[in-house]
Amino acid sequence: MRLVTINDVRAAARRIDGLVTRTPLLSCPWADDALPLWVKAESLQPIGVFKIRGASNAVALLTDEQRARGVVTHSSGNHARALAWAGRAAGVAVTVVMPEAAPAVKVDATRALGAEVIIVSPAERDSAAEQVAAERGAVLVPPYDDPAVIAGQGTLGLEIAEDLPDVAAVLVPVSGGGLISGVAVAVKALCPTAHVIAVEPELAGDLAESFWSGERVTWPVEQTYRTIADGLRVSPVGELAWQHIREYVDDVVTVSEDGIRAAMRELALGSRLVAEPSGATAVAGYLEHRERLPAGRTVAVLSGGNVDPALMASVLAG
Amino acid sequence: MRLVTINDVRAAARRIDGLVTRTPLLSCPWADDALPLWVKAESLQPIGVFKIRGASNAVALLTDEQRARGVVTHSSGNHARALAWAGRAAGVAVTVVMPEAAPAVKVDATRALGAEVIIVSPAERDSAAEQVAAERGAVLVPPYDDPAVIAGQGTLGLEIAEDLPDVAAVLVPVSGGGLISGVAVAVKALCPTAHVIAVEPELAGDLAESFWSGERVTWPVEQTYRTIADGLRVSPVGELAWQHIREYVDDVVTVSEDGIRAAMRELALGSRLVAEPSGATAVAGYLEHRERLPAGRTVAVLSGGNVDPALMASVLAG
Repeated sequence: MRLVTINDVRAAARRIDGLVTRTPLLSCPWADDALPLWVKAESLQPIGVFKIRGASNAVALLTDEQRARGVVTHSSGNHARALAWAGRAAGVAVTVVMPEAAPAVKVDATRALGAEVIIVSPAERDSAAEQVAAERGAVLVPPYDDPAVIAGQGTLGLEIAEDLPDVAAVLVPVSGGGLISGVAVAVKALCPTAHVIAVEPELAGDLAESFWSGERVTWPVEQTYRTIADGLRVSPVGELAWQHIREYVDDVVTVSEDGIRAAMRELALGSRLVAEPSGATAVAGYLEHRERLPAGRTVAVLSGGNVDPALMASVLAG
Repeated sequence: MRLVTINDVRAAARRIDGLVTRTPLLSCPWADDALPLWVKAESLQPIGVFKIRGASNAVALLTDEQRARGVVTHSSGNHARALAWAGRAAGVAVTVVMPEAAPAVKVDATRALGAEVIIVSPAERDSAAEQVAAERGAVLVPPYDDPAVIAGQGTLGLEIAEDLPDVAAVLVPVSGGGLISGVAVAVKALCPTAHVIAVEPELAGDLAESFWSGERVTWPVEQTYRTIADGLRVSPVGELAWQHIREYVDDVVTVSEDGIRAAMRELALGSRLVAEPSGATAVAGYLEHRERLPAGRTVAVLSGGNVDPALMASVLAG
């Protein structure tokens, strides 16, 4: 299995330049002075999530014939919205299969971008997307386990390496593994001494179990769907992502639900950034696992900010 | 009375380079397609507010003798925090006089930065700061009516002009007038056709009355203290600011309290940015006065994000 390379990531960066925002790397004055923290604020992308990078790269790589037939995907929400956005920008029709547990805010946002949304039960979502692809001839753009998507997400790691070349640790949330795969390729190529650390909710800790056992394990959806981090419920990580994780990732930590809420609160009040639970998970990793981080500068990837208002209100009310 | 010039603003920009964040100018996908909007996210400064610019410029201009005696100011909170931050960075002692209505979060944040805080009634705050200056020989750094502070705030306008040279309108919240004075100098010098528009809460609409009557009027604190925009309760605008406003500002609009809350909600959910009420006021101007804006690209200055969590929770709960 060929892994994505730093050259693939650099090519993706050229391809999506001007389509996505070069998000700021923001210093966190509320962090421990002895272990300074920066957040990569992907919540400031136009659609509030990093996934615009991978989706834009995948759409940019379509042939004219593929463009005419459109694209299809399955997603818990953010990849869907990203693909809808990238498709609209490129004039390509987008169909999205979503699990019934996806927050209404994400379903609505995807439809508002002109995509057709089909709702299914969590167990059906892979097969439903494949069925649409077969029926319509549309190109399936997977949410994470795809070289174009991984290379696109990796552009975020490229920017971290450019903005903070002496970074000691990069904390990345993990669901299907596309984000951490791309980021790890870029960070390890440009900052070889930096640790790349995966962060998962304890309630969806299948990668931690896989990483330490050496076997890619699957947790049932009844288990992973208990976390509030609705973007991190995928299990197992993709097969291609798994190969990147084994090659490039240094550590995997898990965080509590309370830790995710505490991180959302800290980001809102200390950094003035709205993070969805999945987006705050890497910061929760910083808050709960300081002793496990190498000395030096830490970056946490704030992957997205599309939160349900009622949940954010309850987190702020404390 | 000598007005601040674009050269003063450029000199300030060089002086504070590396001390403050060059904040992003973020496109708002939720805005009207026919009247596109960007926000200048000063909430992403390390202390969450633009005032770090003016304070840093003022501190950088101190002589060695002045540095040894320290600085003092009065402020409803954000300038205080900014001066405390700039003083700490430069090793200069800071004393702050605050009105008793200042939110606890701002008082605590100022103290946490090592400043001494003295609480007084709103009517006393000018005289109390002057008394400290006289007793200690400290340099008074006013929150707005000062050439160094105005030039420092103007660096924000310089960045808008650099990032969006064809901007058609810049919406700026007004309290004492230091921010809009500096921004107007920069924008009018670099983008002469752009309109600079002041935005105030209706409940603290003294500048609107002044602007249209030609007389700088004062509204009593009992009146201006009714707005939730606690950073915009100063009346009247400063004398020096008033001269800049008469020279450079094109229009003044006022917004409702509901409009300010709606803007806070839109910024949190649509742009993933936490804004305090004062910080959301310029966006409220966009939401409530579209018909009054020139065609083309609008920028709203999101001046700060230091909000009380309970207020933000109530805005999100809707």
